[in-house]
Amino acid sequence: MGNQEAIALKNCRLVLRWVGDSLEVLSNVDILIRNGKIERIAKSGSVTVSEKEYHIVDCSNKIVLPGIVNAHTHSPMVLLRGYCDDLELHEWLNRMWEVERHLDSRIIELASELAVMEMLSTGTTAFVDMYFFPEITAEVAKRYGIRAALGPPLIEVLYSADKCFREIENFYRKYRNDELIIPIVNVHSIYTCSLETVKTAAEFAREHGLNLHIHVSETRKEVFDAKRKYGKFPVEILHDLGVLNKYAHLVHLGWVTSREIELIRFSDATVTHCPVSNMKLATAGFFPFFEMMASGINVTIGTDGAASNNCLDMFREMKTAVLLQRNNYWDTRIKAMHVLRAATLCGYRLLKLNGGNIQEGYLADLVLLDAESPYLQPLRMDNVVSNIVYAATGRDVAMTIVNGRIVYDRERDYERWKRRCSEIASELNRFIQKFIS
Amino acid sequence: MGNQEAIALKNCRLVLRWVGDSLEVLSNVDILIRNGKIERIAKSGSVTVSEKEYHIVDCSNKIVLPGIVNAHTHSPMVLLRGYCDDLELHEWLNRMWEVERHLDSRIIELASELAVMEMLSTGTTAFVDMYFFPEITAEVAKRYGIRAALGPPLIEVLYSADKCFREIENFYRKYRNDELIIPIVNVHSIYTCSLETVKTAAEFAREHGLNLHIHVSETRKEVFDAKRKYGKFPVEILHDLGVLNKYAHLVHLGWVTSREIELIRFSDATVTHCPVSNMKLATAGFFPFFEMMASGINVTIGTDGAASNNCLDMFREMKTAVLLQRNNYWDTRIKAMHVLRAATLCGYRLLKLNGGNIQEGYLADLVLLDAESPYLQPLRMDNVVSNIVYAATGRDVAMTIVNGRIVYDRERDYERWKRRCSEIASELNRFIQKFIS
Repeated sequence: MGNQEAIALKNCRLVLRWVGDSLEVLSNVDILIRNGKIERIAKSGSVTVSEKEYHIVDCSNKIVLPGIVNAHTHSPMVLLRGYCDDLELHEWLNRMWEVERHLDSRIIELASELAVMEMLSTGTTAFVDMYFFPEITAEVAKRYGIRAALGPPLIEVLYSADKCFREIENFYRKYRNDELIIPIVNVHSIYTCSLETVKTAAEFAREHGLNLHIHVSETRKEVFDAKRKYGKFPVEILHDLGVLNKYAHLVHLGWVTSREIELIRFSDATVTHCPVSNMKLATAGFFPFFEMMASGINVTIGTDGAASNNCLDMFREMKTAVLLQRNNYWDTRIKAMHVLRAATLCGYRLLKLNGGNIQEGYLADLVLLDAESPYLQPLRMDNVVSNIVYAATGRDVAMTIVNGRIVYDRERDYERWKRRCSEIASELNRFIQKFIS
Repeated sequence: MGNQEAIALKNCRLVLRWVGDSLEVLSNVDILIRNGKIERIAKSGSVTVSEKEYHIVDCSNKIVLPGIVNAHTHSPMVLLRGYCDDLELHEWLNRMWEVERHLDSRIIELASELAVMEMLSTGTTAFVDMYFFPEITAEVAKRYGIRAALGPPLIEVLYSADKCFREIENFYRKYRNDELIIPIVNVHSIYTCSLETVKTAAEFAREHGLNLHIHVSETRKEVFDAKRKYGKFPVEILHDLGVLNKYAHLVHLGWVTSREIELIRFSDATVTHCPVSNMKLATAGFFPFFEMMASGINVTIGTDGAASNNCLDMFREMKTAVLLQRNNYWDTRIKAMHVLRAATLCGYRLLKLNGGNIQEGYLADLVLLDAESPYLQPLRMDNVVSNIVYAATGRDVAMTIVNGRIVYDRERDYERWKRRCSEIASELNRFIQKFIS
């Protein structure tokens, strides 16, 4: 990809950004980008930009959004999109695993590529991943220019913790200075790892300043089993193990008590809501979005893997997050702007990066939507947030910029990527065909 | 649009159709269309088709679906997409009405056109509408070639019933023999009309063989008020008024008792689920999809108006229907194929038309999806239903055929329609700007 270029987004029709935690909508501004950062934001016409110095992008029919973080996924699982997915949960998991235990690096590479093309072309600028062969996925991410937070997964029911900690250490050494890859400590859950291992992982994470990414309280069974086995609720267990601090990244939380919310609140941990996956897998429960947000917890949003979603489109995820919460609360306290903030500003807070906003000095991770999309009309300053969250999908994305580089340009890339996706699909289908009875 | 042409869909990669109530997936077939009907379905290569006789469409990279019915919408409300829609319900309704009472035929025409372009380009072949100026919307529907079931709305709090019945009579006379327009009796609800009027409407509907389309039990307040005022639940009231028969089309039903489900079951009425709207407006409740379907009731799906959705994409609606039901039942009893059937076969049953399926002799109302969409990969016979319901959106539609005519061809129409949508948006914004404080 070479060095970042200087880019000028000229005459942006609408720009959405955060001022503190409030949303501000600007119109007719220029955004100058240099060295991977937002260099300047100015009223259109107030600054002269030289074509020699800047690659100029006409944004008079664009909406510019901060970069979007998919805070929880298993990206190579696009391989299993739609595979046996209307079976009952237990049977489905068995069918998944039957395929997953035969995965190799070639299949992971292809599946990661398919996922990364889906994410970039639907406006995701960074994702948090938990899956096998993370180095392969990391290399694909670097090749396409998307940010990825990932690392080898601790799943003691499959691999010894010792082996895994060595891999985590190696992954960390390899990528700790990478500009796009963010090493993290991936702990599958407290029901697939011993508490001893979870504690060691937390120490490693804190020592190296890495996030610890873990599934917590996704199902009733998990909570029930924890309470029976350890006499405590899952978040209490994590608290007692020293996991709950600013590095903790807790995913799902469909079954949590008020006491557990308090523990999270005082720990500075981040939580992730995966509404589509929770609904599709019928895990029921209730992610307490409003209580979390109101108590100052950093709330983010993720699609989970494509096998339980079945897409990686964060726009669709934002809409479903509002819908599910309104269905839970029986009122409209969760608004479009709350989920947009969760997907952007709060996502970058999770990653400890100065992004997810459009302010001078911030990372130039940006998403440009087509303001002339037929599906967003009529569009105005007063309804742009609603139209983005409730009407748009990732298909309205015209351009994705990560770290100051244009990593997806619909006009330039879409047809080529589409052909590449078809090639990949053929190869993935040859692999998966063996498992279809 | 002229007379229907003969069309040959050659080498269809995947075809989904109903055999009884079961889904069948075919591959490599040709579908011949003539005089608005499906003339023949044959294994590819087994029939020679002359280019002189048929307009030939290469479908080797297409998925062919039966036509899709949006069973409840207020199509011109695309005008109000995103307008003040995150306010509390009562305040939002006031703001809606403030605009709606200034509507004129010009605005309705433009808004209907915007809605029809959205519906056709996202694979909707027919829609059931309730709004002001239905003749204007009917003419737009005819112009674009989409089926529309509609008629003047009875809302006694706004207009006298006498005046409205004359309009319904006129509308019926004008369109009763139209090939695309299906006159219906639109009764807003039992809380905006007197029971006397509802009864008269039911008699008119039965006498003329027209559907009676009515909002029922959408909110707790409506049920509470009915019980207090009349001593009965809303569906019981409709039963006692003689509304419940094969012409009854009941929409929402978020708050119904088992006794009411029994009444519907024995009446042969059709019900419509609007999951996104119910969730977005936080009406809560629970549409009993499984009980309805299991007891043989004809269950259909609708988007409701764009002001409470905010899109008219039936693919997104199908997905949300599954998600919401799984969240309600805490299990996976509602499957992708159930909502696909509700949107296709059951939609045409509601309209009393021989469509929503791909069988010889059926209406040639068909939707062609791009089988090479990056977002549907990897695609196979075994996962095509899941990928359509959970991964696709209307943006994957390549062609829409209604009554044997190609009424939307992405390659031919998209860019032109997009420009037209922009023009319309400008004019609608000039109108709505007056109401923005």
